[in-house]
Amino acid sequence: MGLRSFTLHDLINRNARLYGSNTALVFGDQRVTHAQYAERTARLAAGLAAAGVGQGDRLAILAPNGLEYVDLFGAAAQLGAIVVPINWRLSAEEVAYVIEDAAPRVLIVADEFKALLPQQGLDGMQRYTLGAAQAPWQAVSALYLDRTTVPPADLNDDEGIVIIHTAAVGGRPRGALLSHRGLISASLQTQLAWSLTPADVNLGVLPLFHVAAIGFLLATQQAGGATLLMTRFDPPSLVKHIDEDGGSLIGTFPPMLGALLDAAAAQGSALARLRVVSGIDVPETIARLRITCPHATFWSAYGQTETSGSVSLAPFDECPGSAGRPTALNTVAVVDELDRPLPVGATGEIVVRGPMVFQGYWRCEADNAFTLRNGWHHTGDMGRIDAEGYLWYSGRSPAKELIKPGGENVYPAEVERAILEHPALAQAVVVGVPDVQWGEAVKAVCVLKAGHILSAEDLIEFVGARIARYKKPKHVVFVSALPLGSADSIDRAAVKAAHGGA
Amino acid sequence: MGLRSFTLHDLINRNARLYGSNTALVFGDQRVTHAQYAERTARLAAGLAAAGVGQGDRLAILAPNGLEYVDLFGAAAQLGAIVVPINWRLSAEEVAYVIEDAAPRVLIVADEFKALLPQQGLDGMQRYTLGAAQAPWQAVSALYLDRTTVPPADLNDDEGIVIIHTAAVGGRPRGALLSHRGLISASLQTQLAWSLTPADVNLGVLPLFHVAAIGFLLATQQAGGATLLMTRFDPPSLVKHIDEDGGSLIGTFPPMLGALLDAAAAQGSALARLRVVSGIDVPETIARLRITCPHATFWSAYGQTETSGSVSLAPFDECPGSAGRPTALNTVAVVDELDRPLPVGATGEIVVRGPMVFQGYWRCEADNAFTLRNGWHHTGDMGRIDAEGYLWYSGRSPAKELIKPGGENVYPAEVERAILEHPALAQAVVVGVPDVQWGEAVKAVCVLKAGHILSAEDLIEFVGARIARYKKPKHVVFVSALPLGSADSIDRAAVKAAHGGA
Repeated sequence: MGLRSFTLHDLINRNARLYGSNTALVFGDQRVTHAQYAERTARLAAGLAAAGVGQGDRLAILAPNGLEYVDLFGAAAQLGAIVVPINWRLSAEEVAYVIEDAAPRVLIVADEFKALLPQQGLDGMQRYTLGAAQAPWQAVSALYLDRTTVPPADLNDDEGIVIIHTAAVGGRPRGALLSHRGLISASLQTQLAWSLTPADVNLGVLPLFHVAAIGFLLATQQAGGATLLMTRFDPPSLVKHIDEDGGSLIGTFPPMLGALLDAAAAQGSALARLRVVSGIDVPETIARLRITCPHATFWSAYGQTETSGSVSLAPFDECPGSAGRPTALNTVAVVDELDRPLPVGATGEIVVRGPMVFQGYWRCEADNAFTLRNGWHHTGDMGRIDAEGYLWYSGRSPAKELIKPGGENVYPAEVERAILEHPALAQAVVVGVPDVQWGEAVKAVCVLKAGHILSAEDLIEFVGARIARYKKPKHVVFVSALPLGSADSIDRAAVKAAHGGA
Repeated sequence: MGLRSFTLHDLINRNARLYGSNTALVFGDQRVTHAQYAERTARLAAGLAAAGVGQGDRLAILAPNGLEYVDLFGAAAQLGAIVVPINWRLSAEEVAYVIEDAAPRVLIVADEFKALLPQQGLDGMQRYTLGAAQAPWQAVSALYLDRTTVPPADLNDDEGIVIIHTAAVGGRPRGALLSHRGLISASLQTQLAWSLTPADVNLGVLPLFHVAAIGFLLATQQAGGATLLMTRFDPPSLVKHIDEDGGSLIGTFPPMLGALLDAAAAQGSALARLRVVSGIDVPETIARLRITCPHATFWSAYGQTETSGSVSLAPFDECPGSAGRPTALNTVAVVDELDRPLPVGATGEIVVRGPMVFQGYWRCEADNAFTLRNGWHHTGDMGRIDAEGYLWYSGRSPAKELIKPGGENVYPAEVERAILEHPALAQAVVVGVPDVQWGEAVKAVCVLKAGHILSAEDLIEFVGARIARYKKPKHVVFVSALPLGSADSIDRAAVKAAHGGA
């Protein structure tokens, strides 16, 4: 029963009343007020309901940022349906897997991404294109009815609103189910930390399949502010949006901030309206931001898709190098292998409790029982908490050697599997190495089969054709043998120690 | 399972880490940091657990504001127990009813209020005094053990932490059960609205049996700030606390603010540190605040015990006369008798949905089914919402003619019942009338039995001996007959129209 719930649908309707004539969304030369946004979502909900969409149904979307994308969140919230935003940087094979896993009733695709779709298995889905209708593709505009009379679903706010697939140890993406309460809690505490108001303007350049992009969108919306939706990262345009449209907050991953500062320097802009920058970057770039934009604050954070966003947060300058302190509604702790809390300063696995913890991986009951054991969400990340409560991230747990080029998740196992499909390869270990441009890069340490010859370039191209291109190795080294550990298995730590440089 | 919960216990432990050395509470010359507060609550929880207190048990307290009172909230949160703060302005008969209704395992009483306790029915309870031990009363200090090792209960945050009894139509107090999530949601949105920080100091003068007092305490605590606990309203001391101790926020009900401004004028203080005043008062007094303290904002609000605090809020000057706009996590609407939402500007019953809605009246299933019907909490208050989303309160619903002298709840039915116990009375109708000092006052319109004589003073004294003194009539008029409506019942609206002045 929704008696004690506050859903995204409630938020949209509240805003239509409180901030009705304020701008909610800007896309190109289209401007949508909070009242118009509520109406657009209701019209889309009416169309989806007429198409048979009901509570719990999945609505997959493979598209660049745009108004229909954001409308879909609101329409799904009204119907109790679940949006599945698909990462358009995935390979065709991965996209096929995500679609099969989510089994959506409705699939909305931008024409430019149709080539990523599988040839088979879509027959049971209602297919809509953001372009012109062409059977079996209907135009998404046909889903916006003239009536707005669909009654909202009677939802608990711990029900799901979004499934975001993240890379998994096993190499197959897993869909993290995020609830209304989780995402709204995340946006509320961001709003609190950043003192967001109706005057704030979010620079919506991160792709909406990323939890951080959804978090910035909702936090700004919750505050009654506006989001400028952009389809690509174009630094000169961003400078213009900051200077002329009042852009005040942005989420960034390497190398975005450096490029933005370069463009600002080239255009002679001090980015005077920018006041909140959050994400990941190197201290040198953050120092440049401080000099160019003394009025802006770079916020360090720790979070995952599985925690609906950042669970710790602080201005970088408050404690440089840390990932901030737990936000308002989270308990963040560091535990040992038996989930016993560790004393201040000791390193262990970072675990999280609170309303932002996800509802589990979609159709992965065994994984969920493991990840959510003993009353904690186990992040798979290692860290420590100091005496003042700051969280210090210190890498992935040995069981989860994640690499994060440009903020994306890449699992070594997945890359190694693709490498070993090449007939010339005998063994491979993939590690993350520091990277000036992307923060981290993928490096493969390989052993060729006897008598085989292969260039690094050819191997990189081979892998890039099989998995998302951001997952392919940037560096390849060939060695005669890999070090062995106990039980004659490859000693990954020794490989990392020997080859951990770029 | 507490995996997705954030309870008051979690909040206290988070603060011990984030704001450990900051002052959390001040009482007289005692000063307690956030770290010490966590330790005090854990020691008290250990003592209560040793005394047999477990999840769901009630802990009643009848005491003025003090450290043990606030400790009890934290200890109860750790054990999953429920605090029942008893209003010490109730009559002995009412106190007896509240204790019988809550059936607490533990009863903590200040010596000065022992006279309010019933002679019988306390045998099954463990009794503690805030004064010196005297059998069967043990000293509450004995409950603070030296160990802090009780494991926290595995709680959902929609479980109860406080029961506050409010006046009811039927005349019997009903215990509103408030959850962790409800109270923390309330404090989070207050923190957001008022931009509370660790530098804020709450002037804790409202008695802790009032939901507003708990709200101010928790919001300040959530922000890492301090509360000065006071046992009585003493305007000259308050001026000193503002000027010397940085008192920055206060909850007030008439005539508190006026008296504070009088004292400030007498002491030549501009109350320079005060920045947030919230509650109820007349425009004239709010205008005085504006002149004396241009740096302070008076916030208008609407809320009830049943909504865990304010569900709408705005600076008075933003929309004078309104009760503000819905806060971050609430849906507030105005509906007709069939719970259909009314258009903008139309008057109907105010209903609320969201995490702040209470968990129901304690052991009143029939009342709960009625009050919480159709997915809404029915406040029993009437109002309208304007085009900008401001709520305008316009009185109680005919079924719930509540009178609010000085912010307390008085039901006419209860006062009428007490009046009619007098042998000289034939009929009585009680209405609320405007009052310069208290905002509203109780007025009784009475018909004497033939041949009987009674003075207003004697009737007021008679009633004051039976129910809480703030409920007794301030005004009494005797009439020869009361107007009749349909079905020969008394036409209350006609009585109100004829006698609605003081």
